[in-house]
Amino acid sequence: MMNEISENRLIGQLASQFLRSPIQLNRFHETDAEIIQLSDDLLLALTTDSIAEEISLGLYVDPYLIGWMTATANLSDLAAVGAKPLGILISEILPAGCDQVFLIELQRGLQEACSACGTFVLGGDANRGPKLVMTGTAAGLCSKGRCLSRIGMKPGDMVYSTGLLGIGNAYAFSLFNRGGGAFQYAATAYKPIARIEEGQLLAGLATSCMDSSDGALSTLDQLTRLNSVGFRFNDGWENALHPIARQAAKAAGLPAWLFLAGQHGEFELLFAISPEIEDQLNETAKTINWNPIPLGVVTESPRIEIPLFGEIVELDAARIRNLAAKIDNDPYRYINRLLLMGDEIRKGAKNHASY
Amino acid sequence: MMNEISENRLIGQLASQFLRSPIQLNRFHETDAEIIQLSDDLLLALTTDSIAEEISLGLYVDPYLIGWMTATANLSDLAAVGAKPLGILISEILPAGCDQVFLIELQRGLQEACSACGTFVLGGDANRGPKLVMTGTAAGLCSKGRCLSRIGMKPGDMVYSTGLLGIGNAYAFSLFNRGGGAFQYAATAYKPIARIEEGQLLAGLATSCMDSSDGALSTLDQLTRLNSVGFRFNDGWENALHPIARQAAKAAGLPAWLFLAGQHGEFELLFAISPEIEDQLNETAKTINWNPIPLGVVTESPRIEIPLFGEIVELDAARIRNLAAKIDNDPYRYINRLLLMGDEIRKGAKNHASY
Repeated sequence: MMNEISENRLIGQLASQFLRSPIQLNRFHETDAEIIQLSDDLLLALTTDSIAEEISLGLYVDPYLIGWMTATANLSDLAAVGAKPLGILISEILPAGCDQVFLIELQRGLQEACSACGTFVLGGDANRGPKLVMTGTAAGLCSKGRCLSRIGMKPGDMVYSTGLLGIGNAYAFSLFNRGGGAFQYAATAYKPIARIEEGQLLAGLATSCMDSSDGALSTLDQLTRLNSVGFRFNDGWENALHPIARQAAKAAGLPAWLFLAGQHGEFELLFAISPEIEDQLNETAKTINWNPIPLGVVTESPRIEIPLFGEIVELDAARIRNLAAKIDNDPYRYINRLLLMGDEIRKGAKNHASY
Repeated sequence: MMNEISENRLIGQLASQFLRSPIQLNRFHETDAEIIQLSDDLLLALTTDSIAEEISLGLYVDPYLIGWMTATANLSDLAAVGAKPLGILISEILPAGCDQVFLIELQRGLQEACSACGTFVLGGDANRGPKLVMTGTAAGLCSKGRCLSRIGMKPGDMVYSTGLLGIGNAYAFSLFNRGGGAFQYAATAYKPIARIEEGQLLAGLATSCMDSSDGALSTLDQLTRLNSVGFRFNDGWENALHPIARQAAKAAGLPAWLFLAGQHGEFELLFAISPEIEDQLNETAKTINWNPIPLGVVTESPRIEIPLFGEIVELDAARIRNLAAKIDNDPYRYINRLLLMGDEIRKGAKNHASY
């Protein structure tokens, strides 16, 4: 099941050659960050992530955003295991053409994304190279030995998001599909903040948690594969979409669910909780002025379903997730193919509703 | 003084934009790894390093060596602060052209370099990109709150290396200068192992420590700059050269000291100790079958001196260290310029001895 997804196959192949540390608590794919037991009551969370494809595809051009996303992508993985950050390390590969202003903006983005999460750049490494590559590594601690994992959701669990979805894909659509109007706004509104506080609050409450760095649908698909379950979006799932994504869909005549399906994520946490503690979740969330967004429910059969055109439609998440690899990561072709899939699904539905 | 070196300027410029964590014990340049206080008696060491220039210059081609060096470069930084490794994370940017055999060899190199240090690959990230870039991050713990720093050496301290020097430069010369004979042997003999055990033993003994990842001369120059002191090589410093480097120098008619000056290091630890505890060092070293190599002595005046041609010659370490940046990292030009500097120094000496 996991190997249906080309990215899972690649990671599985690489990881299969590595021996496991006796003090590592997770196996690969099970957590957003690696969890190392330091002592009876202290767990170290470590995660690394490079910003390279996003730069070479032209998705991130502004140096401030590149710095910001390098820090945020890593801090978000710490959030998804419920860790409190100790800080990040950065390895920067800088082309000769990087001028002073570019370098200053790049570091400012790193620093400000860290500040937004109450943490620090601890150090790093700078090299010269032909292409800009930024690699971050975040370290954090889990309090009292508690941490979140992707493993544990059960049929009947309720799935939530820490925030509204689709802004990452609205941003990508704005660059590679059509500009103007709501899309133009999306281009400036994309600046996700890792959900550190929410992650710590969820430790001990959520049965599964994963960040939506690859988009909501990919995240839900990965969680259901790992737990051999399925997922059904609630009626009214459109309310979980960011207003910019909703406006953009309307203005461009695109199906709104594509903003969940695209693989440029919004770095929210998607998590499951037992229905018995929904009230407790909402009470606790209030203490940090946070409003969890209900998304749907965990189901028994291994499929992802969404109410569309007045019926329940099954989404072929594997096909959607493998799309990027199949079209050689060409973002224009990717979006075209995604729109074609949207059309296919609309035509396949019993009621050929317009969007 | 630090800013005389172009690499120090770049790192200083990047780091100047970052706020400092209140629980970070080192400032930038002071340690090979960042040191974070976790509790009264537990320090976390973190370090990150990319293998990118070495790949794009053609210095590392064999995937096993690339994997091995990605792990070793990071583990060596842990060794230089006296930490015990918890493991490493790897971010791999893989070009489309990487075949299965290449990928397998790359991971095998990573795994075996970790095994050689009794540690593990904990996890990581894989992305597609136009050029192969490997970034490692190593985490370790310092026992009982002790860790090594670059800061502390005083005039009169004795400087040692954990092992024989020059094999990294012999390897680079073999690729970019001339092949055959001893050089050919250098190409297969380069497989440094991070000095983890020695680093832990040195914690509490050494007044300063730094790994020789950029070559012995650069390391000594950085240590003396940081401590506002100088360094003089012992008579008989040639005995600190690896036999392959000595043979290679002889066979090719090159001055032996160039194998200390080139910037492809051997990942030994260079460290200083007070002369009063030299006996203690040698006694303790015996317990792990280790033989520290004496190199020279810390002096008052800020210069690096070496006995050559029967006199004491001052080496312009700043000029040598800035050479790589000046010739746009072209390894052939770099070696030519280094050889010219060697000639200059020989001609400047009172006795125009042959090598």
